[in-house]
Amino acid sequence: MELKEKALALHRLHKGKLSISTKVSVRTKEDLSLAYSPGVAEPCLKIAENEEKAYEYTSKGNMVAVVSDGSAVLGLGNIGAQASLPVMEGKAILFKEFANVDAVPICLQTNDVEEIIRTVKLLEPSFGGVNLEDISAPRCFEIEQRLIEECGIPIFHDDQHGTAIVTVAGLINSLKVVGKNLDEIKIVVNGAGAAGISIIKLLRKLGVREMILCDTKGMIYSGREEGMNAIKEEMAKITNSKSLSGTLKEAINGADVFIGVSAVGVLSKEMVQTMNRDAIIFAMANPSPEIMPNEAKDAGAAIIGTGRSDFPNQVNNVLAFPGIFRGALDVGAKVINEEMKIAAAYAIAGIINEEELTKDYIIPDPFDINVANNVAKAVSEAAISTGVTRKAYSEPIFI
Amino acid sequence: MELKEKALALHRLHKGKLSISTKVSVRTKEDLSLAYSPGVAEPCLKIAENEEKAYEYTSKGNMVAVVSDGSAVLGLGNIGAQASLPVMEGKAILFKEFANVDAVPICLQTNDVEEIIRTVKLLEPSFGGVNLEDISAPRCFEIEQRLIEECGIPIFHDDQHGTAIVTVAGLINSLKVVGKNLDEIKIVVNGAGAAGISIIKLLRKLGVREMILCDTKGMIYSGREEGMNAIKEEMAKITNSKSLSGTLKEAINGADVFIGVSAVGVLSKEMVQTMNRDAIIFAMANPSPEIMPNEAKDAGAAIIGTGRSDFPNQVNNVLAFPGIFRGALDVGAKVINEEMKIAAAYAIAGIINEEELTKDYIIPDPFDINVANNVAKAVSEAAISTGVTRKAYSEPIFI
Repeated sequence: MELKEKALALHRLHKGKLSISTKVSVRTKEDLSLAYSPGVAEPCLKIAENEEKAYEYTSKGNMVAVVSDGSAVLGLGNIGAQASLPVMEGKAILFKEFANVDAVPICLQTNDVEEIIRTVKLLEPSFGGVNLEDISAPRCFEIEQRLIEECGIPIFHDDQHGTAIVTVAGLINSLKVVGKNLDEIKIVVNGAGAAGISIIKLLRKLGVREMILCDTKGMIYSGREEGMNAIKEEMAKITNSKSLSGTLKEAINGADVFIGVSAVGVLSKEMVQTMNRDAIIFAMANPSPEIMPNEAKDAGAAIIGTGRSDFPNQVNNVLAFPGIFRGALDVGAKVINEEMKIAAAYAIAGIINEEELTKDYIIPDPFDINVANNVAKAVSEAAISTGVTRKAYSEPIFI
Repeated sequence: MELKEKALALHRLHKGKLSISTKVSVRTKEDLSLAYSPGVAEPCLKIAENEEKAYEYTSKGNMVAVVSDGSAVLGLGNIGAQASLPVMEGKAILFKEFANVDAVPICLQTNDVEEIIRTVKLLEPSFGGVNLEDISAPRCFEIEQRLIEECGIPIFHDDQHGTAIVTVAGLINSLKVVGKNLDEIKIVVNGAGAAGISIIKLLRKLGVREMILCDTKGMIYSGREEGMNAIKEEMAKITNSKSLSGTLKEAINGADVFIGVSAVGVLSKEMVQTMNRDAIIFAMANPSPEIMPNEAKDAGAAIIGTGRSDFPNQVNNVLAFPGIFRGALDVGAKVINEEMKIAAAYAIAGIINEEELTKDYIIPDPFDINVANNVAKAVSEAAISTGVTRKAYSEPIFI
């Protein structure tokens, strides 16, 4: 049977992928009187006195909403909230299986920025964190930013940061292999959507000095008139310091690294040949990359990563988001800040020892149990050291 | 240890009462490619073509949102959304344990009627049904009615209908014991909140002709000026046909049945003594009833039910809501209509054979496994016979 048919069969046979479990028994009258009426009034009263107690007496602290409006789903685009549900259920089961995070799909029947923000805020009492998923750019930037400002729980748009963190992890290891440093390389990022923007921000935080962001109209620079928006204006200020204009082909000339979160085939062999020695290429367009790995190799690239599991060096978000939320929730982090994201990237990179590193093994296997664990540890330490954890998590609990 | 301390310990030790489970494995690369990318695109595309397919390829068809704003929680009142979470988690585990319904607590940070309606509508893609819970009257009536009109999934406010259905089940059996008929008795309902209103509506549908509804200001009648609202005006039209005015004491004179969903101690022995022979009393104020069972018995009442598990004949919603949703979801019902509620009431009553019926055993044990099963069967049959099931559920499934 083909993969497509198998996937349909799997979903149909189980009627979806997730269910609810009870953590406490309700088999006797006493069980019922403790877990429900009248005993349940006691935790209610504790929380009414101090809302932070919800982290002690309810499942909130391990419960994440996977929120989408279905506007930018996988390679499918704007298929709507209802049709995005299988993806959100998939995300939820990955959260559970990879890091024991309880996650619930919340597919919202609206594309309106204000309505999405308002709804997530209204849902805050039930959840300890929010993973935004498959919301199209540039709406995703405002939604995430506003929710970070207006909510007291971690908000994380995985399409931006998950991809950025794993890409950066791969880049860190790639540079070890070719013997270059972050602060001396030139990077071209192609694609100014959710992932591209977050990659730029994270790389900047890591000390990369020379970056150019391109979109379908070529290099983005301050003063460009065509196809700009608020976030591209912001990016123009922190990249492309010489304010160069021109095509991707011109941008790539002399670059050390190409990071593609764009479209199939936009990087040619000829373009790779104009890159610096030991070029590093992350061609992550899905399902078909910006350049096929064998072509990139033929053109002299040293290291190639893609989004696909059938080539080496797969940039797979599942390396990041489960451990990141595990770490954030474990210490009651109120946000997932840049320091926590960087800690996650280094933790993922660090899974592979220097002696194990090769050109075809710069990113760990997603099924390596150490990944989520090390990421969670690093993220929780970064949360503590940056002082963003809830007070409730550093106090002993008294009933 | 006291019940209060035990309840706190239980909630703290487990950090709440529910978690998420995965129905499919994600341990290998192939698992991942079927349950998530790229295979997950297939069910997405099927649903994008026909939204009803969500019932085949996702968990939607068994997933219920337990929605509250925390405005009327147990005996605690308006404690807010966050503090209501332990109750909603409790409800969710009862759904699971009693009828294998997957339920998610959705506690909304607002008391605004329009915002609650709008939010639930936006959440519809993720859920196959909505159990409204602990929302104060009269807001609960408008919220439920509007959602029934504007959503395509079953909406059920348990505080109204759950209580009404179990009360009616108890009344059906009580009448068998004392040998009276529904169409020849006089019933006084005290309390014009969520439960009282639903009880009146259900009894009327069952053919009860003489009913008087009282609130703290006495009998409700057309033209009363004090303390009225839209729903009370509606009730005045369908009850109290002689438009009597006066106190509860005057109303109860000559009544066959007293149904209290009101406050502790409002029914005196003297009032019971003025009731008809073989009086039936449901005194369901929580935690202390309108009259204590021994006092009611002393005053000559034949049958007494309360909301408490430490007296005979407990009116417990858990007898109704799990089986009702099980039945509705099993056949893809789009609503839970009056016929389905009545079917549930008769199914609950029917658990006890006529030979088993006694004055102290008119309502089945909540742990009787037959209850949810028989209720589900009766409800699904009523849904089919009233033509409210989804087309998808009567068609063979082709991948």
